[in-house]
Parts: sequence; structure tokens; C-alpha cells
Amino acid sequence: MDPSAQSSAHPTARIERALESALAAHEIPGAPPRLAAAVRHAVFPGGARIRPHLCLAVARACAEDDTALTDAAAISLELMHCASLVHDDLPCFDDAATRRGRPSVQAAFGEPLAVLAGDALIVLAFQVLAQAAQHHPERLAPLLLNLSRSTGLPTGIVAGQAWECEPRVNLSDYQRAKTGSLFTAATIAGALAAGANPQAWLALGDRLGEAYQIADDIRDVMADPDLLGKPVGQDASHNRPSAAHQLGLTGAIEHFDGLLAQAMQAIPECPGAPALRALVRMESERLVPREWCPGNMRRTALA
Amino acid sequence: MDPSAQSSAHPTARIERALESALAAHEIPGAPPRLAAAVRHAVFPGGARIRPHLCLAVARACAEDDTALTDAAAISLELMHCASLVHDDLPCFDDAATRRGRPSVQAAFGEPLAVLAGDALIVLAFQVLAQAAQHHPERLAPLLLNLSRSTGLPTGIVAGQAWECEPRVNLSDYQRAKTGSLFTAATIAGALAAGANPQAWLALGDRLGEAYQIADDIRDVMADPDLLGKPVGQDASHNRPSAAHQLGLTGAIEHFDGLLAQAMQAIPECPGAPALRALVRMESERLVPREWCPGNMRRTALA
Repeated sequence: MDPSAQSSAHPTARIERALESALAAHEIPGAPPRLAAAVRHAVFPGGARIRPHLCLAVARACAEDDTALTDAAAISLELMHCASLVHDDLPCFDDAATRRGRPSVQAAFGEPLAVLAGDALIVLAFQVLAQAAQHHPERLAPLLLNLSRSTGLPTGIVAGQAWECEPRVNLSDYQRAKTGSLFTAATIAGALAAGANPQAWLALGDRLGEAYQIADDIRDVMADPDLLGKPVGQDASHNRPSAAHQLGLTGAIEHFDGLLAQAMQAIPECPGAPALRALVRMESERLVPREWCPGNMRRTALA
Repeated sequence: MDPSAQSSAHPTARIERALESALAAHEIPGAPPRLAAAVRHAVFPGGARIRPHLCLAVARACAEDDTALTDAAAISLELMHCASLVHDDLPCFDDAATRRGRPSVQAAFGEPLAVLAGDALIVLAFQVLAQAAQHHPERLAPLLLNLSRSTGLPTGIVAGQAWECEPRVNLSDYQRAKTGSLFTAATIAGALAAGANPQAWLALGDRLGEAYQIADDIRDVMADPDLLGKPVGQDASHNRPSAAHQLGLTGAIEHFDGLLAQAMQAIPECPGAPALRALVRMESERLVPREWCPGNMRRTALA
């Protein structure tokens, strides 16, 4: 590996710059300006960008040798995540007026542009990958297949959302598809973009993805809507499967902690391992703050 | 070229078989069954499948050497077209109860599954390309970029649909994006899948795409809804830009004939040219039947 190929830029800077550049390329004369604005509204300002952060961290741990491809792999996941949020907020799903503390795309631009902004973001996610693979064309198909597997039928995020339309649903299938799939995809994409075997990274993505869905359920019950940036109590009001309701709040928090401990253990020993452990620890505290834990029972596993 | 690599199967059989195989791969345990059914409803039975036919005809004219890749390129366009129909029929756009002579996806499965079926079809369109490129990996990125350019921002079909949400719209930008882009993409994809230079095929796709949008406007005014399989008068009732309203019906038919004549002239001289000319002639009659032409003024250019 050529050491100069590994970016010294801070991951946050890399992610924001790559997203900005992908969007700016389409904000040109000839593009419908309101659609372009709706797409930008969906992407900026972002949330924690945890999926691309995870992808970059794994790529660095795998000694990345093509930063442009890593960046594309990272933001393709974030663009897909943003697309899913825009469509989830539509009137026929959550009918959410707010997202990330400000009007949702459908509230700000109307339902037609929210449908189209989601569509455009899905297309863009694939496009950025195709544009970035010129130096390593043999990595393109695996990256695309990883992205499509985590997004479409039979078990990607679109399938996950569709389980809400089924008369019978298995909670674990639903959660794995709706949230877990993009996390697993993030660790795999990091390895693939670096030309590494993704096998060693599957378990980390799986455990983190499951933990995020549980965290989402816990936050839906616990969080201050001002902190969360979106309406709370959505799961109960939409009668959605929820671990917090199935396990109880304490049980759900214990489950979350157990999954994060497993995620920690799943990180392969490598030079990038400490950075990955720090990322997992930080996310754990951000998602389910210590003060929510009854009697401070938790966090031993993550210490 | 290895002559055995060119398929002897009828183009219709190739297209239907490839679509069937792409859908069946996802109809497995673990997939949400209603979403899978909604996706199938969107794809089968199909319409004229003109975009994949055009792609196959160009690939054959370019001496195709990888039928699996040509098939994938052809159906990726059809899957994207089906996705756009499903989303166009949503309540926030056309609110169409019927499509291809039977209930639209949103009428049959409800709005949430119609949104998700469209999303899943967009993802599938990229996925089938990625799965089929193993023998010619160097053709994958150009095929993907062609597909994304014809679909997303700034000038693909999603952008075309978004022009309906803008306060000011240029009729030709709107039509080129909304309908033309997938036709141009079809001729380019046929050449790319065959490893040929797509430059010679741009004009054919452009002219055909423009002709189809005009034909759509004419049919929206003229056609028997039983023949068309969807509600007529949609352009006027949705206050959409329409060539039939801008040019008058006779003017629109003349313009349509002129474009088809240009398409004929744009077909490069090659062994596949007669088959392509026959395809254009047949489509011309299917789209705007002779009996609609005032005083039988038309069709000299296509004779």
C-alpha cells in the first residue's frame, strides 16, 4: 500500500466534502431547481453520519489504498439512508412534519418532491460508486451488490419498511432488514473499497445494526423530541413492532449493552482496532445516554 | 466475435425470461410477500417493452458478444420504467386507479407498498447490471452511468417528473428528461453491452424518445381509454405541458411523423439496420394509428 493514498483528513471532513461534491455536480442549469433543493435538504445538515463513519473506519483498518473509492462507498450508504428517511416521513408512512430538528422534506417541499427526492437519492447512491471505481474496476460489482443487497428485496431497508405492511411480522427479520442491513453493508463496504476480504467484518456490522434498531426503539420511548429532532412515540402510534415494548425498557437497554459488547469483541485485531472501539463507545453513549440506565446498571461491558 | 454468443431467441422471449428471473430471485422466504407481489404486479404483464426491445436491437446491430449482459442492460431500463410508472400513479401525482388495463399498484396494494415497490425496482435495476458484468467488468461502470444519467438528477426521468412541480417549465427540457432520457439510454446501453462505441446511436435514441413523448400527448387526447389501459385526458386535468395542446393535434401528428423519419435516417448502415427500421415502423403505427391522421396526410416519410 502507498501510504500517501490513505487520507489524513478527518473522517467528518471527508464525508461532508464527498456529499457536497456529489450534490453540487447536479445543481446545474437544466436541473429542476426545487428537486435539487429538496435533495440538499434531505442530506444537509446531516445526523451523526454513523454509517459512513463506520465504513471509513473499517477501510482505514484495512489499510485503504483508494480514498476516492472509500469516500464514494461511505456516502453511497449515507445517501441511501437519507432516501429512506425522506420516504419514511411521507404521509402514507410516518407523516412526520420534522426530521433532524427541522421540517421534513415532505413538510418543506410537499409530497411529490419528497417522493422524487428519495428516488433521486437512491439513483445517486449507485452513481457515486460507478463514478469512483476507475482505478479499481474489479471492486465495483462487489460494492454495488453489497449496496443493493442492503437496500432492496429480499432483505434490505426497503424490505424492512415493507414488513410494516404485512399482516404478520417477525421482529428480528423486520429489524435486521430495516436498520441492520445498512450497518452490515457499511462494514463490508469499507473492506471492499480497500480491496480487503469483508468476511472478518460481518459480525461487527451485524451486532451494531441490531444495537441501533434497539436504540431507536428505546429512544422512541425515552427521548426528548427536541433532542431527537423528530416526533417521539411513533412506534406505538403506528403500532410498529418495538423491542422496547416487547422486552420492557430495562430489558431493551440490557439487550442494547450486550450487543455493543459483542460488537466490541467482533472487531478484528488490527492497527485500526482502537479507533473503531472508540467509535463504538462514543456511539453507545450518544444513542442511549448513561442517565437513562436504571440504577446505572450498564456500561460495564463497554468500559 | 463468437457467433454462438448472439442469442437466437426471440427478443420478446429474452426480455420476459430475464425479467422473470430477476424477480424470482427475490421471491424467497425472508422477503416480505406483499412487497414482492407488488413488484411483480408492476412488471407483469408488461406493456410493449419498447425500451428493452430497442436496446436488444441495437446490441444485435453491434454484434453482441455477451447475451447475459445485453439482457441485463435491456431489463434494467424496463425495471426503471416500471418504477417510474408506479410512482407516477401515486395519489400525489396522477392518482391513477388503472394502468395497462388493470388496477395500478397503488390501487391494488395501497400507497405505502406502491412507494416501496418503486424503490425496490430502482434498486433492482442497478443490481441486475452488477450481477451480469462478470465477463466484461470494464463495461459495468459505463452501463451504470448511462442508467443513472437517464434516471436521476439533473436530467433523467425523475428530474422530468419533478418539472411538473416547478412554477416555470420549458416543454422541451421536460419532455427530453421525462420520456426521452430512457430512450437515449436504451440505444446507448445496447451499444455499451456489446462493447461498441455508443456515439453512432445517440441520434436514434434522441429522436425516438422525443417522438414517444409527442405520441403520449397525442394519445392522451385521442385514445380510447380501453385501448390505452389508463385514464385519458390526464395532461389537461393535471395542467401538464403537452405538445398536443401547444401545437394542436394535426401539428403534433406532423411533428411525430417528422421525428420518426429522422429516427429512421439516424440508423447507421449495418447488418442490423433493416430489423431496426422494421421496429421503428411498427412502433409508429402502434403509437399513432393511421386512422387518427387527418386526411391520411402522414406516413410518406415512413414508407
